Amino acid sequence: MAEVPEDHRDLLERPLVVSLATVRPDGGPQVNPMWFEWDGSVIRFTHTNERQKFYNIEAEPRVAIAIQDPDNPYRYLEVRGVVSDITGDPQGEFYRHLALRYDRDRGTPPRDAAHRVIVSVTIEHATWA
Amino acid sequence: MAEVPEDHRDLLERPLVVSLATVRPDGGPQVNPMWFEWDGSVIRFTHTNERQKFYNIEAEPRVAIAIQDPDNPYRYLEVRGVVSDITGDPQGEFYRHLALRYDRDRGTPPRDAAHRVIVSVTIEHATWA
Repeated sequence: MAEVPEDHRDLLERPLVVSLATVRPDGGPQVNPMWFEWDGSVIRFTHTNERQKFYNIEAEPRVAIAIQDPDNPYRYLEVRGVVSDITGDPQGEFYRHLALRYDRDRGTPPRDAAHRVIVSVTIEHATWA
Repeated sequence: MAEVPEDHRDLLERPLVVSLATVRPDGGPQVNPMWFEWDGSVIRFTHTNERQKFYNIEAEPRVAIAIQDPDNPYRYLEVRGVVSDITGDPQGEFYRHLALRYDRDRGTPPRDAAHRVIVSVTIEHATWA
């Protein structure tokens, strides 16, 4: 795993909405806002297996993630990595875990729980400012 | 040009630091923070012709741009488009125009003025929340 400097680790730890860049099957880029969690080793996202982003990472597992400090837009972290695991989350448990982290839990599984997956990204490269 | 709804136009008008996603020559994505200006028709960035992002858009002109409302991270605009023009900015005039817009002007041209370019992106698709 690439090293992220101590003084930018907060950007991986705070419940920030990050921009996930993927490559579409036609070769063009796409970028979407995402919840995430970093466990010190991999970055995990909740997603469904029914949307474009999912088709993108199935075909091209390389992704880039921009994390901006909302208190200072000139302080950021860019992480490039690769999707190293996709695991089903059919009860929506990880979704709810993230929803709680982001203070958006509604007390019930998401309606699309049957299609929820946990996408794990291994960090390969990081830049920051 | 794709239509951006009236109630999200502010995200194109405010001096926000946006995330520009490009595709690297190896086919993987890259995402970087950028200043921008929208003139009602195209989105313009200042850049130099000496960095990876520039090589990326020379080889693959399709880009994606995420604009997040810093006051509400769940309010955003994703724009996909294509680099429709690259023009030299050898005096750094457009750079300084943007620096003034972002309240970061230092009163002098940037040191890399000789390599500055104006990158224009035509919007082809927009999504928002």
